[in-house]
Amino acid sequence: MWLICRVWRHVVRGGDFVIDATCGNGHDTLALAKMVCTESRKGLIYGMDVQQSALQNTSCLLDSTLSPNERQHVRLFPLCHSRMEDILPKGLSARLVAFNLGYLPGGSKELITRSETTLLALDAAAKVLGSGGLISVMSYIGHRGGREEYETVRSFATKLPTTTWVSSEYEILNRPSGPVLIFLFRR
Amino acid sequence: MWLICRVWRHVVRGGDFVIDATCGNGHDTLALAKMVCTESRKGLIYGMDVQQSALQNTSCLLDSTLSPNERQHVRLFPLCHSRMEDILPKGLSARLVAFNLGYLPGGSKELITRSETTLLALDAAAKVLGSGGLISVMSYIGHRGGREEYETVRSFATKLPTTTWVSSEYEILNRPSGPVLIFLFRR
Repeated sequence: MWLICRVWRHVVRGGDFVIDATCGNGHDTLALAKMVCTESRKGLIYGMDVQQSALQNTSCLLDSTLSPNERQHVRLFPLCHSRMEDILPKGLSARLVAFNLGYLPGGSKELITRSETTLLALDAAAKVLGSGGLISVMSYIGHRGGREEYETVRSFATKLPTTTWVSSEYEILNRPSGPVLIFLFRR
Repeated sequence: MWLICRVWRHVVRGGDFVIDATCGNGHDTLALAKMVCTESRKGLIYGMDVQQSALQNTSCLLDSTLSPNERQHVRLFPLCHSRMEDILPKGLSARLVAFNLGYLPGGSKELITRSETTLLALDAAAKVLGSGGLISVMSYIGHRGGREEYETVRSFATKLPTTTWVSSEYEILNRPSGPVLIFLFRR
């Protein structure tokens, strides 16, 4: 969706530390690497996924697209997003944490992100995010368990205090089972 | 809201014909005039409002901000948006039709846009919009009649055929009575 990259670019600058909480096939990881690695400043990207095949796909995509120098600034972890705090460098705030929920495109539709771990991951993301940062969630409702997970994310977003967060939602109206975008901006 | 101007800029180019269906105090009319009047190309802006005081405020704002040349490219009409087809130049397709619903800020809260005329106006806007154009609706739900009007707009958006339209909605989740943005992109 054209909107998601526009919103990320509104927030992310060269040199930033960003997290792809669900690498999938690596397209978001790559887009983020391009955003934080500029001529003058090289940022840091942490990517994670529970599925080894997702990390392999991501690694292949990055190897074939990024320069060796840029590639060094991406680290991939075989990890559930709910445990992102385990690997984060101390004292470093993330500028963006991106979630692309559901199943791995091209992979098994039985292996999906789940409400309980996604909720833990959102909690962790909210903790590691710096002021001015963004948690970006692409939520799919067409698959089994998708709507429940979406409701969990939405409920999390709705409860965030307005003093420190602006949570918003973008959805397609005339395609009812399409993905929904949820943006959590930290003031 | 920062998003609305970004989305408009994604669609509108210098030289375009655009419509502000609800001038209000003229801020959107001004923003649109700046977008369609560039160095090399001057577009055309039609603005309308049922309230004379709204048109006066808009006219004052435009006179004090635009160059005399730019100002000539804005035409204001004392008209309900449901009747926009009455004044449109034949054969000219609009690139953008913008609605900012509700009451006039600073004016009477009894004078509001209403579901019936807003629905007629959306029908008219869909007819005058060219391919690649956008109907942009800012809908307020905090005032009396607001939620009903919002539901009318949302229902209109949901029913648009996916072959020719992408309708989408952007809303703030942790401020339940805040405005909702509805974008109707014509393919």
